[in-house]
Amino acid sequence: MIYADNAATTKMSRTAIDAMLPYFDKIYANPSSLHEEGQQAAEALYTARERIAKVIGCTPKEVYFTSGGSEADNQAIISAALSGERKGKKHIVSTAIEHHAVLHTLEKLKKQGYEITLLKPDENGLVYSKEVEDAIRPDTALVSVMYANNEIGTIEPIREIGAVCREKGVVFHTDAVQAAGHIEIDVEKDNIDLLSLSAHKFHGPKGIGVLYAKRGILLSNLIEGGAQERGKRAGTENIPAIMAMAAALEEEVSHMHENAAKLTAMRDKLIDGLTQIPHTALNGDRLKRLPGNVNVCFEGIEGESLLLLLSEKGICASSGSACTSGSLDPSHVLLAIGRPHEVAHGSLRLSLSAENTEEEVDYMIEEISKVVEYLRGMSPVWNDLQKGVKKYVIQ
Amino acid sequence: MIYADNAATTKMSRTAIDAMLPYFDKIYANPSSLHEEGQQAAEALYTARERIAKVIGCTPKEVYFTSGGSEADNQAIISAALSGERKGKKHIVSTAIEHHAVLHTLEKLKKQGYEITLLKPDENGLVYSKEVEDAIRPDTALVSVMYANNEIGTIEPIREIGAVCREKGVVFHTDAVQAAGHIEIDVEKDNIDLLSLSAHKFHGPKGIGVLYAKRGILLSNLIEGGAQERGKRAGTENIPAIMAMAAALEEEVSHMHENAAKLTAMRDKLIDGLTQIPHTALNGDRLKRLPGNVNVCFEGIEGESLLLLLSEKGICASSGSACTSGSLDPSHVLLAIGRPHEVAHGSLRLSLSAENTEEEVDYMIEEISKVVEYLRGMSPVWNDLQKGVKKYVIQ
Repeated sequence: MIYADNAATTKMSRTAIDAMLPYFDKIYANPSSLHEEGQQAAEALYTARERIAKVIGCTPKEVYFTSGGSEADNQAIISAALSGERKGKKHIVSTAIEHHAVLHTLEKLKKQGYEITLLKPDENGLVYSKEVEDAIRPDTALVSVMYANNEIGTIEPIREIGAVCREKGVVFHTDAVQAAGHIEIDVEKDNIDLLSLSAHKFHGPKGIGVLYAKRGILLSNLIEGGAQERGKRAGTENIPAIMAMAAALEEEVSHMHENAAKLTAMRDKLIDGLTQIPHTALNGDRLKRLPGNVNVCFEGIEGESLLLLLSEKGICASSGSACTSGSLDPSHVLLAIGRPHEVAHGSLRLSLSAENTEEEVDYMIEEISKVVEYLRGMSPVWNDLQKGVKKYVIQ
Repeated sequence: MIYADNAATTKMSRTAIDAMLPYFDKIYANPSSLHEEGQQAAEALYTARERIAKVIGCTPKEVYFTSGGSEADNQAIISAALSGERKGKKHIVSTAIEHHAVLHTLEKLKKQGYEITLLKPDENGLVYSKEVEDAIRPDTALVSVMYANNEIGTIEPIREIGAVCREKGVVFHTDAVQAAGHIEIDVEKDNIDLLSLSAHKFHGPKGIGVLYAKRGILLSNLIEGGAQERGKRAGTENIPAIMAMAAALEEEVSHMHENAAKLTAMRDKLIDGLTQIPHTALNGDRLKRLPGNVNVCFEGIEGESLLLLLSEKGICASSGSACTSGSLDPSHVLLAIGRPHEVAHGSLRLSLSAENTEEEVDYMIEEISKVVEYLRGMSPVWNDLQKGVKKYVIQ
């Protein structure tokens, strides 16, 4: 089996699993408990917070543990919105290609009277800092732009956007769920006020994430209750998962450069091989792109059929993102970068990890080429395109 | 080390850990992915949902996975409040002894214009269905009464309260975090519309819980994003934790009767032994009580000093609940059942599991008796009580 769906979720690393195990049945007490066992757990928790803070360039007190990226995104946006509202600011700037954890939270706020400006990226999925600057108004409470896109892999100019926000005095949030562990992040240098990450995207466990909130940024609780996480996120701390997340993040970051080199080479080979298939286009920027991300559109076929046939060949891939599969709508990201509906439907995302090999890359190019040809052979749309009844969108 | 703090959190069982392990690095795909590996994960998820539904007496579609008990409590209450508001109902009935996940959510709603009635329990922590009935008004949107109290262990007459709510057509939520796995729960027979539970209270993992919502009860999202959990709770499903939760719950329930018998015997021996100490009172109902819960007040001493000295003797216990430790305020539960401040401060909770032994019980009685005597010897308050300068509250 070739697993090329690492943007959906990753396999936990041995390091992460080993970091987790002692906290299930050895150091398992509640870190809020005053006794020795509880204090051992509290110490572990503090250490994990320090280690994660060090990786992203902040202080331990700026790290809040959440149940994952979606919760962190929701809390970041709602916190900034409520803070803004108290100052009479009810305008938010974001982009049309954010994850649904961001977009749906913004929709909820819109119903509550907030005004939302969604910037359209360019045809490669890039958002320009100049456009962010132009969109900011005196009543802008928040700018939220993702670090790297989960579908097409485009890496946004976060540092520049952050600088614009800082200059304008607007809170800046970035959903770094796809970036963390894969490309360098430094919340200080990048001028980030709020950042979300999720452990299961970098070989850590599911069900745990981080919301970084810069000192001075007031968080509102999504989950009320006990005084955990400095009173900002109730619920007994998930220490096994937190320890595993810290270990996974450190491990990924320590191999970041060698992994990126390996992944970029495999990625580029895949892109070159797949775009040899006629009427196939790369989605996302060719260079400003996550090292492991490949996303292409094949004209004339349905992504779902492609995925199922690839699965039979032992290739695990996705079309769009896992979070929206099952939906019949084409990807909102592909539509936002200008792909027409019928082309967006024929998309394929391959997301690699350092465990993938050159041989797997060769096999994938070969098999995908065959399957695309096979599906096109049965496709009435492709038939119309071939006969000239319809015109090709992708030349 | 004697661990008697199982109401704060439990050690994961071997069964639960083993149920979890394959899902870290073998069946690790995202259940939303269409490929074979994703579908295997989806199947596991479905099976876990079925198994949990069977234990609590509902259908799989009524089971929503959350990050734990606090999230489930928050979502249950906010959902019922918003549903009520749409019908012009903005009154909620609850009790003064709920967990802070409930009480703080109610405080938030109060600031948003909801009216909250908090029933006072009797001196044993019992809430009467008649009082719930009397508190229900035409504009009551929700009744929320916990299944069993986390501090004093009192088991509430949930079935009767549920019947009252059903008759009056009011949504009924119960926080069953301390009850699940320990005493019998059947959402159908108990007339429950919304129920929260948390895996780490029954030897499952931290970071995972369930919100049961009866068919027809509309949930509002706390966490927006992907369409997981029938669109009501976004975020990649935490399958390893979910599998472990299902295994832990089944295991606990299958041994419920033998465990309850064993725990009740140990509990009663502890209660008898500790209440031999002069001027000591049991908190909570003597009979309608969780099998593993012991909670006593020792007049004239400070609970924190007691805990630290017991920790040195290898006894892990707590005063009040772990969620509020570190706070200097005495337990809101003990105050609600009528303990004066100075007595509430001298409380001790021992919460047992089936792993505790008779020998441990004997050792605890002996050591606690000594430590209480030692602390009283140094206590100016005790000195005043002995001299008759102050009057004993506990005879």
